[in-house]
Amino acid sequence: MTVPTPTPADRFSFGLWTVGWRAADPFGDPTRPEVDVVEAVHRLAERGAWGLTFHDDDLFGFDPDAGHRDKQVARLREACDATGLRVPMVTTNLFSHPVFKDGGFTSNDRSVRRFALRKVLRNVELAVELGATTFVLWGGREGSEYDSAKDVRAALDRYREAMDLLCTHVLEQGHDLRFAIEPKPNEPRGDILLPTVGHALAFIERLAHPELVGVNPEVGHEQMAGLNTVHGVAQALWAGKLFHIDLNGQRGIKYDQDLVFGHGDLLNAFALVDLLETAGYDGPRHFDYKPSRTEDTSGVWDTAEANMRTYLLLRERAAAFRADPRVAEALAEAGVPELSEPTLGAGETVADLLSDRSSGEDFDPAVPGRRGYGFVRLHQLALEHLTGAR
Amino acid sequence: MTVPTPTPADRFSFGLWTVGWRAADPFGDPTRPEVDVVEAVHRLAERGAWGLTFHDDDLFGFDPDAGHRDKQVARLREACDATGLRVPMVTTNLFSHPVFKDGGFTSNDRSVRRFALRKVLRNVELAVELGATTFVLWGGREGSEYDSAKDVRAALDRYREAMDLLCTHVLEQGHDLRFAIEPKPNEPRGDILLPTVGHALAFIERLAHPELVGVNPEVGHEQMAGLNTVHGVAQALWAGKLFHIDLNGQRGIKYDQDLVFGHGDLLNAFALVDLLETAGYDGPRHFDYKPSRTEDTSGVWDTAEANMRTYLLLRERAAAFRADPRVAEALAEAGVPELSEPTLGAGETVADLLSDRSSGEDFDPAVPGRRGYGFVRLHQLALEHLTGAR
Amino acid sequence: MTVPTPTPADRFSFGLWTVGWRAADPFGDPTRPEVDVVEAVHRLAERGAWGLTFHDDDLFGFDPDAGHRDKQVARLREACDATGLRVPMVTTNLFSHPVFKDGGFTSNDRSVRRFALRKVLRNVELAVELGATTFVLWGGREGSEYDSAKDVRAALDRYREAMDLLCTHVLEQGHDLRFAIEPKPNEPRGDILLPTVGHALAFIERLAHPELVGVNPEVGHEQMAGLNTVHGVAQALWAGKLFHIDLNGQRGIKYDQDLVFGHGDLLNAFALVDLLETAGYDGPRHFDYKPSRTEDTSGVWDTAEANMRTYLLLRERAAAFRADPRVAEALAEAGVPELSEPTLGAGETVADLLSDRSSGEDFDPAVPGRRGYGFVRLHQLALEHLTGAR
Amino acid sequence: MTVPTPTPADRFSFGLWTVGWRAADPFGDPTRPEVDVVEAVHRLAERGAWGLTFHDDDLFGFDPDAGHRDKQVARLREACDATGLRVPMVTTNLFSHPVFKDGGFTSNDRSVRRFALRKVLRNVELAVELGATTFVLWGGREGSEYDSAKDVRAALDRYREAMDLLCTHVLEQGHDLRFAIEPKPNEPRGDILLPTVGHALAFIERLAHPELVGVNPEVGHEQMAGLNTVHGVAQALWAGKLFHIDLNGQRGIKYDQDLVFGHGDLLNAFALVDLLETAGYDGPRHFDYKPSRTEDTSGVWDTAEANMRTYLLLRERAAAFRADPRVAEALAEAGVPELSEPTLGAGETVADLLSDRSSGEDFDPAVPGRRGYGFVRLHQLALEHLTGAR
Repeated sequence: MTVPTPTPADRFSFGLWTVGWRAADPFGDPTRPEVDVVEAVHRLAERGAWGLTFHDDDLFGFDPDAGHRDKQVARLREACDATGLRVPMVTTNLFSHPVFKDGGFTSNDRSVRRFALRKVLRNVELAVELGATTFVLWGGREGSEYDSAKDVRAALDRYREAMDLLCTHVLEQGHDLRFAIEPKPNEPRGDILLPTVGHALAFIERLAHPELVGVNPEVGHEQMAGLNTVHGVAQALWAGKLFHIDLNGQRGIKYDQDLVFGHGDLLNAFALVDLLETAGYDGPRHFDYKPSRTEDTSGVWDTAEANMRTYLLLRERAAAFRADPRVAEALAEAGVPELSEPTLGAGETVADLLSDRSSGEDFDPAVPGRRGYGFVRLHQLALEHLTGAR
Repeated sequence: MTVPTPTPADRFSFGLWTVGWRAADPFGDPTRPEVDVVEAVHRLAERGAWGLTFHDDDLFGFDPDAGHRDKQVARLREACDATGLRVPMVTTNLFSHPVFKDGGFTSNDRSVRRFALRKVLRNVELAVELGATTFVLWGGREGSEYDSAKDVRAALDRYREAMDLLCTHVLEQGHDLRFAIEPKPNEPRGDILLPTVGHALAFIERLAHPELVGVNPEVGHEQMAGLNTVHGVAQALWAGKLFHIDLNGQRGIKYDQDLVFGHGDLLNAFALVDLLETAGYDGPRHFDYKPSRTEDTSGVWDTAEANMRTYLLLRERAAAFRADPRVAEALAEAGVPELSEPTLGAGETVADLLSDRSSGEDFDPAVPGRRGYGFVRLHQLALEHLTGAR
Repeated sequence: MTVPTPTPADRFSFGLWTVGWRAADPFGDPTRPEVDVVEAVHRLAERGAWGLTFHDDDLFGFDPDAGHRDKQVARLREACDATGLRVPMVTTNLFSHPVFKDGGFTSNDRSVRRFALRKVLRNVELAVELGATTFVLWGGREGSEYDSAKDVRAALDRYREAMDLLCTHVLEQGHDLRFAIEPKPNEPRGDILLPTVGHALAFIERLAHPELVGVNPEVGHEQMAGLNTVHGVAQALWAGKLFHIDLNGQRGIKYDQDLVFGHGDLLNAFALVDLLETAGYDGPRHFDYKPSRTEDTSGVWDTAEANMRTYLLLRERAAAFRADPRVAEALAEAGVPELSEPTLGAGETVADLLSDRSSGEDFDPAVPGRRGYGFVRLHQLALEHLTGAR
Repeated sequence: MTVPTPTPADRFSFGLWTVGWRAADPFGDPTRPEVDVVEAVHRLAERGAWGLTFHDDDLFGFDPDAGHRDKQVARLREACDATGLRVPMVTTNLFSHPVFKDGGFTSNDRSVRRFALRKVLRNVELAVELGATTFVLWGGREGSEYDSAKDVRAALDRYREAMDLLCTHVLEQGHDLRFAIEPKPNEPRGDILLPTVGHALAFIERLAHPELVGVNPEVGHEQMAGLNTVHGVAQALWAGKLFHIDLNGQRGIKYDQDLVFGHGDLLNAFALVDLLETAGYDGPRHFDYKPSRTEDTSGVWDTAEANMRTYLLLRERAAAFRADPRVAEALAEAGVPELSEPTLGAGETVADLLSDRSSGEDFDPAVPGRRGYGFVRLHQLALEHLTGAR
């Protein structure tokens, strides 16, 4: 078989900071030159991508003069116009500059919190100007290394204050923009606030305008906590909160690797694509990865392609898996569709349940205790579809 | 110094399954005889404990005849009456019997789900009879090993259905009982649903009666996901959802160790006691641990004492830490109290913030960028208080 | 494509304790009946397996009378004769009985250590009688939870004493038998001695007869320490010490899952098969897995097949990967063959190197600093071969 | 009690790159100015430190002209002469410059390997000139992210070739210098070769001159693999290979934190100090940590002090623990001293053991099966000594 070719209909987007990563790491200097935004737009567009996203600092630096800022925004617009690439999402860098070393919205220093809000508010306007409808917030510096150094409850108060202010602003301005919080358990802080999809979802429920705020799960971030990304994304979908997604690869619990999508836990990536494609998610398939430090500029574009190729390949495999009658039969044997049946009958009450002897007095637990669910056979079918053996 | 002696005022409680654990593990047979419930009540009471908790199966087995069940409940009552020990919490075993091998509330098998609800409903009545006000639900079998074997969104629907039914029942009956969900990332399932405090808190918000449901974080369970227990507990407190807590010890990301409280990450245990004691948590200090398999029955009671001794020791150390003027000064330097100040002034609007030049145009980020927060010195003060060196 | 059918030429072997696992876990009771050894031999043989392995206790229990022991051995022999299945490896259970709760060879109790040696010595004789040439030693209870409770240096002395005694015995008896130590980082002990392939290899070098002792890496055990199994196996091969291997699956750092081979990190499993098949390893492909607790007896045999199918599938995919000219070209670009060239020329001395200006004064590090190794493209080729897309 | 004051007799040393770390991380820019080496020497000496260590690049950059190099070396010498600080160890930076992006000794690029050897050889001479007797080698870039991109066996061949060349050189020159390999499981590479103390010890045994090469375990590096640092250090001591040690703190399996010693797993740090002080280790107590990014320059020196204070505090606590008669009694009950008794009697043979009925036929495993080792009580004594409660 051949791997399908990406097209804009696939809604693949890339962060400017991904292909533009210069490959400095905690122990090493950059190995690649900067990639100009216009170059990035053209290279991505000619490979079939649909969108480009960016942090403010990626495009024009931390403290640009007005001329440089405007020029860079204009250059981006022109490149997008020329290629048809969109800017579906924008985000703000609240982590690189030393001012944010203890956080942005939750820095212990109030002056920093106020400055951070200003920085985000300004970038929200830019996002709207460029037609983005999602604004991602990764609070990478919101956290601590030492337990007594951060009053977590106060920090959550400040986080909520910031989110409420941003939502109020968007509502007042009538912007068509929603926020997506990106969780991460650690790195660069020892413990980051809202470390998983779950914590972020819980936090959102306490906001003044929860309807404006969802999550942006990143595959590798969930895996850094040893969690199943598919479970987290499914809970976000269940809550109606999957506003965006960051696809990449991670090989277990360690530093943030940001590998190409699929270049980590491949079986889980297969299941994730299966979920996204069957659950009605219609947002961007956004790649937030880093081309390895050993790659040169030509390798950078190969890695961009690899993300899209892998996604499409998994999409094909997942579709074949779902279409296979043997799979349908195995799913039925495993009781997977049965889980969609309510546990109670229509209109059944507690009293009804308690009077149903077949669920109690007359129920023989040994029978379902002996039931073979055939989960392993089902998983083997998935593996064999994934590997193209069926 | 001497370690203080536990008293019922300290509200220490133990699971019957903890001191009663017979020390079988996945690779080994039991090393200790059963501990009778009456024995457990007396041994704990004479050591200063305040409460005993249990799963239904701990007290009278999975499928007792009515006589045995009643007798065991009566024996527990008598022992409690004789000693003053309370039963502040009860929970249901939905994990040991083969019938629950794919879960209770979220088993793919609908008949199992109905049976599980019956089992819990019956146990709720017992809990109320015994005066318990908290009912813990650990869904240890609600999960999967294979991604296609569990439709997570359907499973969350069923989980919600179960919780809503239980809450309805409690409201209809007028019971003074609240539910506390206990998260765990994995073991015995490969991935457990509601794997962390965050996921459980988020789930609760989607229930019909969220006010009746909170969380029961377990120290080691959060640490099995590499998360900071103090952060998770703080978020639960922030949400008004810390209904119960399971104290124990864990040495990093591995199988569930259930060590004595403090016998894992001691600095984090210190911070946890500090949080519980200063945040107004007035519920039980419940130990959910396992006396190591190498201990005999006499060692079991030593380990029970060790939990309480460590808690009291940490409570003293934390109080001294908070009372030390050098600590207050270090906290101020670190900006910890400053985080409790709202970021916006009273009545300040977005427009006001945007017009405040001191937070924007005239703000020099280099100044807070150079600020020394002194977090390490503060942590060293904590360490020196913890080690009794101050 | 179709998945090839296993044959004895593939040298697939299974532990009796794998298909025979009754599916009790730390939180649950058995869900399956016992599997008789004769049944196991026939079921495995008819599926194309080559060997069966066992612990003494698996076959005849911990403390059999002589009649039962002999009968069980005879039944095993007959089944093997009838089917052609071999017994390539035998191992001893030094972990299930309470006597071993603090270890076998390194128990703090000297009487236990002596008893453990007797148990192993007896089983060595049985291994030889049955024609096994490898004797695996998994020291699952050799370890500790509490640092002051185990003098690690003394424990290593005792471990060495035991191994030296066993080797002496084998040499004296003229047995054709080698030992293979199986590392594991933790579970059931908090920290197990010789936790990784590396630690075991280092230990072996200090034995009196290192030539008789190698390692038996288990895929999931290395992954429980977050290590790359392929790297560990490669170091064992490099040291001439890969005497046996345990194939299974694990999904990250958590409790020991013992999934079917490939049902964890599939890309790493692909690389492992590639290594085993190209590095001249000719020992058993031994599956040490557990059929999930949700499977019934019929599912057990499906899971046994799944292990073999996955191995054969990966073997085909790896062979195609190695045969692809694009892969050869990518390997060359990546410098993979270049690493097999010695760094020094033939006969080159330190002085020669220091006088080679092209490696020093005249060397421009910027040139290789800019080199693109194309590792990601190479890995994408692997992924596309693995998924049958090339 | 008061914390003792560090003195040179305590043999505390610091890497120049530790106090000199400018606090850039993967997501953030530097927050602190450079620290001049002369400043570092004086600040450390006045706080009681004994030694300073460095990478070549720390002192004079990657590609210094001869004048700058000589000047920096001279300035270091003068500062040492003025303060009495020593240079007990030197190491080479084979990881920061892009040339090393695929490794130094094991780069797939042979020209890089040759250049790396030249860089190390030159630095060896400097180490000897400065009186260092240990040369540490951390191969942080020796590794891979993608399994087919690195032939691990070839890489180990090249690693050995490099080590053999270095040892030959040292022997030929008659230098009083030994090498110490520093293991790390990952970061900055996805999987680093020689990932743990065990792997490094095993590798060393295969060198031409193993007597010249030992290990330099780093507390946090072992913990990044979930391993018990005390176990790894004990195995190194057992093998006579603890040539140097890097003390710091790490909070579980995540990115490399390099916290202050003790600011991670405090109970394990206590046990480590206990081991070092009682096992006859007389090498440097070297701190390889990073002052957190939130600290200013004044905080840097506080953090340096914190390392030494914590070590001395733990040393006192460990000494008191060892001197406590209740501890001696608990150790005896736990059988800890019993593990130092050989399992066989003097001159006892296998035949003797097999004929000792008391270890076999007449041995009742139920007796030691019931034995209570009291490990938890012993650990609680350790905790209470650590916290100054005894």
